[in-house]
Amino acid sequence: MNDKPLGVADAEYRRAMREFATGVAIIACGAGESRAGCVATAVASLSLSPPSLIVNLQRAGSTRQRLQDAGAFSVNFLGASHEALARRFAGGAPADERFSDGAWIEGATGAPVLADALAAVECRVEEILARFTHAIVIGRVEAVRPGDGGPGLLHWRGRFETL
Amino acid sequence: MNDKPLGVADAEYRRAMREFATGVAIIACGAGESRAGCVATAVASLSLSPPSLIVNLQRAGSTRQRLQDAGAFSVNFLGASHEALARRFAGGAPADERFSDGAWIEGATGAPVLADALAAVECRVEEILARFTHAIVIGRVEAVRPGDGGPGLLHWRGRFETL
Repeated sequence: MNDKPLGVADAEYRRAMREFATGVAIIACGAGESRAGCVATAVASLSLSPPSLIVNLQRAGSTRQRLQDAGAFSVNFLGASHEALARRFAGGAPADERFSDGAWIEGATGAPVLADALAAVECRVEEILARFTHAIVIGRVEAVRPGDGGPGLLHWRGRFETL
Repeated sequence: MNDKPLGVADAEYRRAMREFATGVAIIACGAGESRAGCVATAVASLSLSPPSLIVNLQRAGSTRQRLQDAGAFSVNFLGASHEALARRFAGGAPADERFSDGAWIEGATGAPVLADALAAVECRVEEILARFTHAIVIGRVEAVRPGDGGPGLLHWRGRFETL
């Protein structure tokens, strides 16, 4: 999309954003052979009425494309025990390898849902806004699967942490 | 904006989103008497090229209005020592009281910048998208102020935590 080398300003920006801690989520969509998913930390609540959230995804990525086709997706908040799963979904592995590990079940929208996530939220795609290299995906919440309150996985200063 | 009581689905959604840990940021804008600011946890990087981020703010809030008028804002990532400041900016205090505490300096864009933040990022307002009760603010990064790497302030399961 944009392969110019990062300038000083970009590197400075990247360093600054590392200071904002986040949980770690897997965004998942599709079914069977057409499942796709990736790790995202750019997740934010939008409104409570109606329940809605946003996720920023790479425009060129397979998850953004399949999510658009499927019209629904899940946001699975990872616990401390999911660090290996997070690395699997952050790397370059093909989709079938990504889903070969983890307690994936089919959610109410048809999207894959991680049964032992801290919580999972399923959304219908309300809108996709392409901006720069990324897509802002607005999801309207259709279903929620609560978890059992275990320790959480975080990402901060370029590292995984637990809380 | 929307004053119907929260239904079960809204409460379930709120509980699920509490599982996604975040850093804590103060969004600040304006100058002198027209300063405004609030705490935000719905902050996410958008793209690196160009450096840009999004912040979700209440549409009806004073910060959203003044940020739109000012055309610029700062995102100040809070450290563990800033919990009282976070509570001040989360409550109902008027703007002059909010800024009466904290090491506020004038940034490159004219927005107030917290000198001892973990990092501060100043943005020009690129776009404001009104969606449901909230506004998605897209900021184009103009300046970055690095911090000194101290411990961070987080928000998780409805509580402040430090890391």
